[in-house]
Amino acid sequence: MANEVILLDCWVSMFGMRARIALAEKGVHYEYKEQDLGNKSPLLLKMNPIHKKVPVLIHKNKPVCESLVILQYIDEVWTDKAPLLPTDPYEKAQVKFWADFVDKKIFDSSRKIWTTKGEEQEGGKKDLIDSLKVLENELGDKTYFGGETFGFVDVALVTFYSWFYTYEKLGNFSIEAECPKLIAWAKRCLERESVSKSLPDSEKVYDFVNGVRQRMGI
Amino acid sequence: MANEVILLDCWVSMFGMRARIALAEKGVHYEYKEQDLGNKSPLLLKMNPIHKKVPVLIHKNKPVCESLVILQYIDEVWTDKAPLLPTDPYEKAQVKFWADFVDKKIFDSSRKIWTTKGEEQEGGKKDLIDSLKVLENELGDKTYFGGETFGFVDVALVTFYSWFYTYEKLGNFSIEAECPKLIAWAKRCLERESVSKSLPDSEKVYDFVNGVRQRMGI
Repeated sequence: MANEVILLDCWVSMFGMRARIALAEKGVHYEYKEQDLGNKSPLLLKMNPIHKKVPVLIHKNKPVCESLVILQYIDEVWTDKAPLLPTDPYEKAQVKFWADFVDKKIFDSSRKIWTTKGEEQEGGKKDLIDSLKVLENELGDKTYFGGETFGFVDVALVTFYSWFYTYEKLGNFSIEAECPKLIAWAKRCLERESVSKSLPDSEKVYDFVNGVRQRMGI
Repeated sequence: MANEVILLDCWVSMFGMRARIALAEKGVHYEYKEQDLGNKSPLLLKMNPIHKKVPVLIHKNKPVCESLVILQYIDEVWTDKAPLLPTDPYEKAQVKFWADFVDKKIFDSSRKIWTTKGEEQEGGKKDLIDSLKVLENELGDKTYFGGETFGFVDVALVTFYSWFYTYEKLGNFSIEAECPKLIAWAKRCLERESVSKSLPDSEKVYDFVNGVRQRMGI
């Protein structure tokens, strides 16, 4: 089975969901191996010794780590359908810029909402809304960030949607009230089977996060 | 001058130096525009309205931002010599992984050395050395991170070398004592004109950083 594809992942990881969506878009058959991040498996430690994190895509027995690197790898290996990146160097640079923006701005701010309280939590809310508004402005009136085509930035961002309910409940605010067009875009993405089958139920995410918060004493 | 190439940069930026090295490797003629980051120019704010940072590469009047995105753009537009990225998807994924490692681990830890004191500074030193050792291990006995070819990871990392003297003086330690093979690699890189002409003098960096520290009251 030298050609087999294995995904080391954790159901609640928005980074793992990216790999799931891309593999589904490409129609790649793979084995999903759920990882217990509280008790990391020898396979995970062997395949990602540097960061020891999910997701890891194992293809032909070789690991690829870091979700945006994985997305690009998937796009370059399975080229027969659903291109995620444009071929023009300038357009590709813009896509990379926005995916990087998602990683730098959305994760850190949203993490503050569920790992802190009080003033720091409020700061996280404000930063998240500011960053989502920047993204909403970039989306404009396009169907997807990729224009008419569901692409790299769409995959990178939409996985956070499964955590929006958690941010809203814990932060007591409405993302839809702030960014209605972005929510409409997320719902359009969810009409794709690749997305709807890759994202977990929002209430399950909320229950999971509440459990983590209790263990952290927040 | 629709085809002209302009680089908005700041002499002391290790991210800007990356773009300088890549343009020199490719033999691209460009106009260098030094930016005052304490008083940002209308051109910088127009070309990078999201992050308002250097470097920005302007090509055919269109901006490309974020140094690793710029490196990839340069590699894809000027293809006739000095390829920075391998073409094989797996090798390319590994290169992207290590460049991402440099951005995530080296910048944050080294920044602590010159922006903090005491325990926090010691933590930065430890993290920097740990991360440099990981990179030294990845380099192994190769000439460059790119093997026999000077490549993407070499460009991404070597620019930090111009700040090593500053880290060592402020942190009172020797990087060469910890990572002799990595220092030998940096010296090999500096034999290339593309690198030696793009990196500023280490003592000038130290004087600049000391000035910043005084203004910050550290």
